[in-house]
Amino acid sequence: MSFKVGYLGPAATFTHLAVTKYFEDEAEQIPFLNIPKCIDAVAAGEIDVAVVPLENALEGSVNLTVDYLVHEQPLPIVGEIVAPIQQHLLVHPEREHCWEETEKVYSHSHAIAQCHKFLHRELPDAAYENATSTGAAAKYIQEHPEEKVAAIANELAAEEYGLKMVRKDIHDYPHNHTRFAVLHPDKAASFRTNLRKVTDRTTLMITLPSDQSGALHQVLSAFSWRKLNLSKIESRPMKTGLGNYFFIVDIDMQLDEVLIPGATAELEALGCGVRILGTYSAYAI
Amino acid sequence: MSFKVGYLGPAATFTHLAVTKYFEDEAEQIPFLNIPKCIDAVAAGEIDVAVVPLENALEGSVNLTVDYLVHEQPLPIVGEIVAPIQQHLLVHPEREHCWEETEKVYSHSHAIAQCHKFLHRELPDAAYENATSTGAAAKYIQEHPEEKVAAIANELAAEEYGLKMVRKDIHDYPHNHTRFAVLHPDKAASFRTNLRKVTDRTTLMITLPSDQSGALHQVLSAFSWRKLNLSKIESRPMKTGLGNYFFIVDIDMQLDEVLIPGATAELEALGCGVRILGTYSAYAI
Repeated sequence: MSFKVGYLGPAATFTHLAVTKYFEDEAEQIPFLNIPKCIDAVAAGEIDVAVVPLENALEGSVNLTVDYLVHEQPLPIVGEIVAPIQQHLLVHPEREHCWEETEKVYSHSHAIAQCHKFLHRELPDAAYENATSTGAAAKYIQEHPEEKVAAIANELAAEEYGLKMVRKDIHDYPHNHTRFAVLHPDKAASFRTNLRKVTDRTTLMITLPSDQSGALHQVLSAFSWRKLNLSKIESRPMKTGLGNYFFIVDIDMQLDEVLIPGATAELEALGCGVRILGTYSAYAI
Repeated sequence: MSFKVGYLGPAATFTHLAVTKYFEDEAEQIPFLNIPKCIDAVAAGEIDVAVVPLENALEGSVNLTVDYLVHEQPLPIVGEIVAPIQQHLLVHPEREHCWEETEKVYSHSHAIAQCHKFLHRELPDAAYENATSTGAAAKYIQEHPEEKVAAIANELAAEEYGLKMVRKDIHDYPHNHTRFAVLHPDKAASFRTNLRKVTDRTTLMITLPSDQSGALHQVLSAFSWRKLNLSKIESRPMKTGLGNYFFIVDIDMQLDEVLIPGATAELEALGCGVRILGTYSAYAI
């Protein structure tokens, strides 16, 4: 059965790469201009599934995704794709032999940050210009052969936009990966995939009762004595003022009928807000 | 005495605004292209003080600042400036009466995210282009009267680059503030200011002994039973792979001789890494 998968476009982003590897069944792949539009399209029923970046090993959470799911569009996470991130310096074919003259480097802000040491060393005078994605940056280079510009993007982008890869693997740290979230209106939805399953996860969003010292400590106690392993805890602003946070917690298991419901019931009795953002399996490329 | 203050430029960024309000004594103000270069310039002795954004009430921490201080250039935080953030839509004077035709909106990614509802409603078809700062976005608009572009930036930027403010206060959430860090090689440095002091703070960076369930819970216990109020706790990736984090913790008091040293000594005995990023006072504009 063919279905419609939206992803953070344009073509040849790392999200696109993840989509092409994850779904075993045939899927129509539709790029979106930004993360909110992609998530909104699933909520509106225009597409069946959305795939958006959730967290990068170096840069941390993709705040726009987390915040949009929490504050704006509460779609459940039904799957996770873990993909390796390898960055290359791409230029227009006409500039292959004078890429050292590059005056401006385009890419997603995370990609620029990931290649900071390379840029500092090889292109110390270049300015950085943030693009909405690595794919968009590559597209810009294709469309501006007259400018002294380069993009940081993946191999797919070099192919898609006919660019030359003048430096390979320019990222500062090896073993960089990104987690992509698969979003679907039915929280129990699952998809056939040939990828290797790496873990199960349940993601919770927790708000604290008030600005009291030790409230977070109490929250963690509820998980700790049950030996529920938290692979991640992160604070994000509530958007109500400096110092007000909610917490995103990843538990390394699928939602069960006893332990996680027990912990969340206790937290709610203590005045916390708890929302399950999803319970799902993570697969690695 | 005049001294040299570097800030995240170009002119008229919110960082620049904070610098102009904070220092009572005369200071030479020098814009830097990006946060690492500004921090590096203090470390190299080219300037005396650096002022860079640390955290926004809506977007959370400025990861580049936190990560650069932790991983690359360990300069102490010696002060904090809390500034209100009010965003406006700016266009070239020639486009004042046809701003609705805007095809692309330039700004810092945080500013774009802060005005998401306005953009979604008033300019639904516009693309977003991330600039290195709100000031840089405004500068781009000044230099490109022929393009159908607009910037999101502050009033100072409208003045500095001769732009028209066609919509005021377009940010989605009121009460938005940003914390700016004042960095100086001498951790005991302080500056004369007319601003109102809001709190004292000590910022710690903590690493956990291993990927053991409940380690963070144990860390928080050390603060909790001493009634040390944590106004912030945040996880950031260690850059060694998905799932490895360090934590940034803000304690609402200056470094004392008993409580904080007691807690940090215990954490170190338990195998944690603890680094004091700074102990300082926060002032509000």
